[in-house]
Amino acid sequence: MAVVQILPLGGVGEIGKNCMAIRQGDDIIVVDVGLSFPNEEMLGVDIVIPDFQYLIENKDLVRGIFLTHAHEDHVGSLPYLLRDVKAPIYASEFTHALIRSKLEEKSNIKELDLRVFKPGDIIEVGSMSVEPVRVTHSIPETTAMAIRTQHGIVLMTADFKFDFTPIDGKLSNIARLGELGKEGVILLLSDSTNVERPGWGPSERSVIPGLRKVFNEAPGRVLLTTFASSIHRMQQVYDVAAETGRKVAVLGRRMEQNVDICSRMGYLKIPRETRVNLDELKLLDPRQIAILSTGSQGEPMSALVQMSKETYGRMQLVAGDTLIYSARPIPGNEAAIWRTVNRLFRMGVNVVYESATPVHVSGHGYQEELKMMINLTRPFYVAPVHGEPRHQHMYCKMAQDMGHPEHRIFTLTDGIPLYLDEKEAYFGEPFPCGRRLVDYGGNVGVADEVLRDRTTLAKDGVITVAVAIDPEQGEMVGDAFVSAKGVNAPDSLLAQLAEVVTDHVASLREHEIKDVDKVRHDVGDVARRFITKRLNLRPIVLPNVIEV
Amino acid sequence: MAVVQILPLGGVGEIGKNCMAIRQGDDIIVVDVGLSFPNEEMLGVDIVIPDFQYLIENKDLVRGIFLTHAHEDHVGSLPYLLRDVKAPIYASEFTHALIRSKLEEKSNIKELDLRVFKPGDIIEVGSMSVEPVRVTHSIPETTAMAIRTQHGIVLMTADFKFDFTPIDGKLSNIARLGELGKEGVILLLSDSTNVERPGWGPSERSVIPGLRKVFNEAPGRVLLTTFASSIHRMQQVYDVAAETGRKVAVLGRRMEQNVDICSRMGYLKIPRETRVNLDELKLLDPRQIAILSTGSQGEPMSALVQMSKETYGRMQLVAGDTLIYSARPIPGNEAAIWRTVNRLFRMGVNVVYESATPVHVSGHGYQEELKMMINLTRPFYVAPVHGEPRHQHMYCKMAQDMGHPEHRIFTLTDGIPLYLDEKEAYFGEPFPCGRRLVDYGGNVGVADEVLRDRTTLAKDGVITVAVAIDPEQGEMVGDAFVSAKGVNAPDSLLAQLAEVVTDHVASLREHEIKDVDKVRHDVGDVARRFITKRLNLRPIVLPNVIEV
Repeated sequence: MAVVQILPLGGVGEIGKNCMAIRQGDDIIVVDVGLSFPNEEMLGVDIVIPDFQYLIENKDLVRGIFLTHAHEDHVGSLPYLLRDVKAPIYASEFTHALIRSKLEEKSNIKELDLRVFKPGDIIEVGSMSVEPVRVTHSIPETTAMAIRTQHGIVLMTADFKFDFTPIDGKLSNIARLGELGKEGVILLLSDSTNVERPGWGPSERSVIPGLRKVFNEAPGRVLLTTFASSIHRMQQVYDVAAETGRKVAVLGRRMEQNVDICSRMGYLKIPRETRVNLDELKLLDPRQIAILSTGSQGEPMSALVQMSKETYGRMQLVAGDTLIYSARPIPGNEAAIWRTVNRLFRMGVNVVYESATPVHVSGHGYQEELKMMINLTRPFYVAPVHGEPRHQHMYCKMAQDMGHPEHRIFTLTDGIPLYLDEKEAYFGEPFPCGRRLVDYGGNVGVADEVLRDRTTLAKDGVITVAVAIDPEQGEMVGDAFVSAKGVNAPDSLLAQLAEVVTDHVASLREHEIKDVDKVRHDVGDVARRFITKRLNLRPIVLPNVIEV
Repeated sequence: MAVVQILPLGGVGEIGKNCMAIRQGDDIIVVDVGLSFPNEEMLGVDIVIPDFQYLIENKDLVRGIFLTHAHEDHVGSLPYLLRDVKAPIYASEFTHALIRSKLEEKSNIKELDLRVFKPGDIIEVGSMSVEPVRVTHSIPETTAMAIRTQHGIVLMTADFKFDFTPIDGKLSNIARLGELGKEGVILLLSDSTNVERPGWGPSERSVIPGLRKVFNEAPGRVLLTTFASSIHRMQQVYDVAAETGRKVAVLGRRMEQNVDICSRMGYLKIPRETRVNLDELKLLDPRQIAILSTGSQGEPMSALVQMSKETYGRMQLVAGDTLIYSARPIPGNEAAIWRTVNRLFRMGVNVVYESATPVHVSGHGYQEELKMMINLTRPFYVAPVHGEPRHQHMYCKMAQDMGHPEHRIFTLTDGIPLYLDEKEAYFGEPFPCGRRLVDYGGNVGVADEVLRDRTTLAKDGVITVAVAIDPEQGEMVGDAFVSAKGVNAPDSLLAQLAEVVTDHVASLREHEIKDVDKVRHDVGDVARRFITKRLNLRPIVLPNVIEV
């Protein structure tokens, strides 16, 4: 029997860019093709995607791409994979709807083989089959994936929580998970994002009282900011708005888009006459107004941040408005978010971000839910995914505390395959893997050297020194020309620098000037020493030597 | 009677760079002269200090500078103020000791008029007097300042908590605060940092069980990272180490410095033979080793971060080591801290950062402690300081909930004075105030324009295009020379750019080339359009035109 290979291209030992390949013989299945966001060291980087080299090298073996749900960290890099790998894309009707617009921007949608599945379908792909199983999460139509291999079921939980009162009434199919456990789960790949949180997480529905309280008591308009994909949260805003006599407008392109799609498809049930557009707001009393807005991560271009800076054209905030911060700060965004919140308080806007009655809950299960998943599916091997090393570490401890033998728990790493055969599970040789940085121009692949240069540019700026020489005659022509950007220096100092460089080059001997490289080296050297001496700074110096 | 002016130069509506001036007639007192750290938008900025213009313009009126405690956000910008303002510096013996080295670096210490006070001293300064009153905080010898004015006592709490079991046994002088309240506090300027935390904060001593547990159970070396100024925390490490048979080494220049000073002065009582230096560690069993380390904020150059990257020369971490994260992430540092923690987990280091038994507590009082301060001092007016707008907002609500009339609660703003006269308190005209950015070269004053340029440089990099022309003849000399840094473009594209620019300039007519500004404008324009077209990016383009 063939060895089954579990190949993490992204999403283990990190939260983001989830992408897992499962290979049996000459059949490869890909589950999720996500992106992640750059950290503050990745200057000029828009998004981070997995390095797809392994899939590209084996493109003829890729039988299908499966999407567990429509969050960016699970679907965001699909357009980039599709540039090189053509395979059927299996997803729920909802997921297809949400990713469609992005696919249309970046690829020829007609050429794509989009296939809709329903939970419970059993999809034959090569020598394997895939069964999506419904789980609850912060976005509709999320499914775990049960992948049948020769050695048993590889069960990927996807992002999940066990919410017994989900907003859309669609509960996790716990019974089916139990059946699969009975049939035989060889490997459980489990969400571990919230393993640090003890107990059982609150239901999405538990934010209703918090929202209701604010909607009732707010003296003026109520704004709520959350992720553009938090459809369940938006549903509750519409419901509570209708109940408290407020109408809801939507701010932010992405959110408007999602509201349209979801209301059209029935995933969002908007009570009659509750939906209004921005211009209609002026006809309403502030107490009749609620507004859904993007910007929960302090994104500079978002409506919320621009309103907090009073630079947003379509709407202004005023004292007496209330903002509900109904989201989780993604690590790295805290400072920008707090700056926004503080600007709002200065404007007299009341911001509700932590309260006795919660206004946000996580879409990921807590420790007891993670334990229940293990208990339900009774896996032979278990490995946490969708977590940083600290989460993986704690998940492994948790599994051991449940009595799961240590040698059947694996801490996976991007780029290192886990092999399953009749007798055992073991790590294989690393396969080509890594991260690819995409700049704001959409160009894939920003080199580390470019990032290093940007870091230096950002710190001390850049100075260019241009000189013209006549290599034949071995003499300088004209004076040195200096320009600078981002350098904390007065113009007078730059003028001095030009003189210093001019004097130096002019003083060189004929044969020295004939050596263009020496001149270039000298110019850079003189400039660097001058600036370091005067300012104790090290800007990047670009010597430009023109041969005339 | 004179109007008493409360002039916040920094530290209200923000956490950091605390600096308050109190003026009565021709007498000015300054309390605290702190710095704050740059946010991620302040590229190339080392520290942020208050704009001292008001104090410089009135330097002859400054009778004294008082320091409440030795934290950087209260003393860090003193060397910069002292460049222009000479006045006696009043502080506790401990605070003087800790700031001494910094003052020696930046100013001629012999010229300074350093005066030591003890809690309870009454220091006459011009027409006012200042009485330091001991409070508990996360650093020794912290004092509130009772400033007697013609209209009553202006009481600045400084950073405080009411810790009834402080490590050094020096309790807050609650009785004295009560007496001052009876005497008559016209204005209370209160710490508000932890107003969001309900209840009463835990004592510094409450971390002992957490430390003891880890020190006993850790299978190998124990490292603890905290702020270099957390003397109390360090004391507990030495005590628990002695108790559990471990010896303590110190990593990090600043921390070593503070340990020396504090042990010499008796603020740190190091049990005999508990202190070792790094080289002695190799003689010890891992279970006999504890290490104090800086780097709790994920500072790239800190020992901890370098060890996590295995680039630290003096020491390596190994699987089985344990790190106690005994600090609070300063907003903005979270991402860097988590990256460090995750790298450590990957190395097999067990990191204790949240646990049932706490390993860190705050030095700032919680809500009930803030209420107790109001209750004790019974101020006529109250204003929260040392908080962001969100904290000020919540503090004002809290004071109202205590029955304090709203019109006697003030939300201060940096740069806007609060006037106190016989009848009332009211805001005066704004005075010169703001922030000054200090770069890594120690140069004060980084312009906004420079920051904007750095932001662009950081995003897309820089391209320089140099051409030489002969304005007399009106002709181009030689070819265009292109160089780039931080631009995500292949060399071939830059070569093409050089050709495009050369062709363009060569094609200009004689009279056009004679117009140097036009040539410069053209070169920049052509280059920008070329890059935008090919890469959809907008790097900074620097055209250098040399006249030969």
